[in-house]
Amino acid sequence: MQDCREVILREIERVLPERNPYSAQLYDLMLDYPLREGKALRPALCIATCRALGGGLEAVLPSAAVLEMYHNAFLIHDDIEDGSEKRRDQPTLHRKHGTAIAINVGDAMLALTLQPLLDNMRLISMGAALRVLQLIARMAQESAEGQAIELAWIRDVHWGVTDRDYVRMVHKKTSWYTFIAPMMIGATIAGATSGQLQRLWVVATLMGTAFQIQDDVLNIRGDEKLYGKEILGDLWEGKHTLILIHALRHASAADRERALQILKKARPLETAAHVDDTLDVLLDRLLERGDITPAASRELRQHCERERGQPTKTAADVAFVAGLIDAAQSVEYAKRSAGLRARRARALVANALPWRRPSVHFDFIDGVIRFILERDH
Amino acid sequence: MQDCREVILREIERVLPERNPYSAQLYDLMLDYPLREGKALRPALCIATCRALGGGLEAVLPSAAVLEMYHNAFLIHDDIEDGSEKRRDQPTLHRKHGTAIAINVGDAMLALTLQPLLDNMRLISMGAALRVLQLIARMAQESAEGQAIELAWIRDVHWGVTDRDYVRMVHKKTSWYTFIAPMMIGATIAGATSGQLQRLWVVATLMGTAFQIQDDVLNIRGDEKLYGKEILGDLWEGKHTLILIHALRHASAADRERALQILKKARPLETAAHVDDTLDVLLDRLLERGDITPAASRELRQHCERERGQPTKTAADVAFVAGLIDAAQSVEYAKRSAGLRARRARALVANALPWRRPSVHFDFIDGVIRFILERDH
Repeated sequence: MQDCREVILREIERVLPERNPYSAQLYDLMLDYPLREGKALRPALCIATCRALGGGLEAVLPSAAVLEMYHNAFLIHDDIEDGSEKRRDQPTLHRKHGTAIAINVGDAMLALTLQPLLDNMRLISMGAALRVLQLIARMAQESAEGQAIELAWIRDVHWGVTDRDYVRMVHKKTSWYTFIAPMMIGATIAGATSGQLQRLWVVATLMGTAFQIQDDVLNIRGDEKLYGKEILGDLWEGKHTLILIHALRHASAADRERALQILKKARPLETAAHVDDTLDVLLDRLLERGDITPAASRELRQHCERERGQPTKTAADVAFVAGLIDAAQSVEYAKRSAGLRARRARALVANALPWRRPSVHFDFIDGVIRFILERDH
Repeated sequence: MQDCREVILREIERVLPERNPYSAQLYDLMLDYPLREGKALRPALCIATCRALGGGLEAVLPSAAVLEMYHNAFLIHDDIEDGSEKRRDQPTLHRKHGTAIAINVGDAMLALTLQPLLDNMRLISMGAALRVLQLIARMAQESAEGQAIELAWIRDVHWGVTDRDYVRMVHKKTSWYTFIAPMMIGATIAGATSGQLQRLWVVATLMGTAFQIQDDVLNIRGDEKLYGKEILGDLWEGKHTLILIHALRHASAADRERALQILKKARPLETAAHVDDTLDVLLDRLLERGDITPAASRELRQHCERERGQPTKTAADVAFVAGLIDAAQSVEYAKRSAGLRARRARALVANALPWRRPSVHFDFIDGVIRFILERDH
């Protein structure tokens, strides 16, 4: 994947305008996330699928780069939407440059994907280039719908969610742009028939759901250094995962009610915590000096709490919810669910398509499925 | 334009997915801005250009609707980037639904523009459909570059800006998607030659710059009820306009320095003002009760000021800058500049293209140029 990442980075640099007066304000910022260590999973899957079906690298490269650009544009906007502070061990783009600039960098990156897809018409057949454009259009719509569902669940603190609702949301939000579009685009460029594409669609759907469920598992049981994201971050953010939906289903009515009250609370921001701390210190000092009465100090603390908005989650809150997950063995349930899907995908991959075997490309796809189950990052 | 607005609204509704489970969370929100009273200037210009050159309404309708969708997606993201609280007399989308949902609605709207542009291939010639896609790709890139320039100027409090820098920024940020793309797309669908397109490009560029300069004028001299935006809003936001650039150039060194200090200050948010007020009231009450000393009250006020960030502009600050503009007669300078461009555009329009005359469509384009100069809204 490291090789692929290098090739894709060079292709993205080729797609971006040459150094111009706007580089420092716009194009350099577009390369910020791609330059951080990442897996380049989406372009790698796209290229491997194309090549394992007999297609050439050159034919698929621009489309693979476009997928990585979409991914990074999504990440930039997603980080703002989730209020995330870090991405791959560094501050998120909007923490570095402000929300306004980060939204615009994401928009610009999406805008720049159109030209390489139009240029495809000179590289592959007109029909294939159009089908790739259709897949990209569908992918963008599905991702936005998945994101809309999740954001509405969070805003409405809606936890009357079934496993099926969760799987549908993940299908749209994750599977489409991480597995379905990359593999279908690779296969389309390699000239797969519509029957073959249908089978590949099933494979990619299974892989996508398994991948996201395992990601949720790592968020709870992973090693923070390898995983690269904050352990228990999903609980702090109140995200809907198969694990938490399972745990709430199996909790007592009282525990469930308490958990819902906790999940309703906002996550404390680093900045808000900072305000807290310094105000606390100041009030303590004023109290000590006898400049304010204990009653005034209490009243001021309450006032600031109110002004900052809703109450926020505490470490004890998150530990309580984590306890429900342990009690219901929800992580094990999720692992089984991911395992079933991944094994079905693996069996289908082995038999469903006219792969060129032996090939490193086929081995890579098979390896991704095994990675989904065994990954620690 | 009212007729056009209705036709375009119906076309956008046709392009959106039929009522589905995601309507309430996503697609209904996409129609929020288009349903507010707006001018529908971009699709109207696109349709009028096409028809005045002999093209049909049906051929141009999907592309015109796409332009209005792009415009509304830009507005949603732009309102977040500028921290705007109102749009056409109602709260902005992110004030109504939160930043996360608003970013995603904008992304989804952009995603949905691709399919109608691909369907164009069945409606107009393949070549014309591809050229329309190219123009849309260029438009999206130019807009993002223009936005990047303006955001960087604001972030860096950069006022070493010449008239030429301003015109270049406006060309990218406003002219491209309000005039150049709509008129070039309309003409392309009507089958204009590349020579004709080149002349139209000059016309649209002149119209775009004149339009933005007049918009800046209205922001200072307009009637708030007709104009629909906040008078002096640009000064509160510290926006770069030809007017302010001219006024700073003609101010004394001392006045200029004072103005720059003012422009550096953030705009007070409605919410921040609210926090101020209630804290002030509380501290006054605690002082009266003798629960805090005057020194403690001062220290607490300073602390909260610091934590909220930089100092914010006052009404007196804005009045000072407005005074510099009056003294240098900068509004009159800007009006002359817009007038020159609009008159040149009008002369070119009258002679440069094989319009069908007489036609209401040609009259409309000519009317837009006159409107640019005479508009009060």
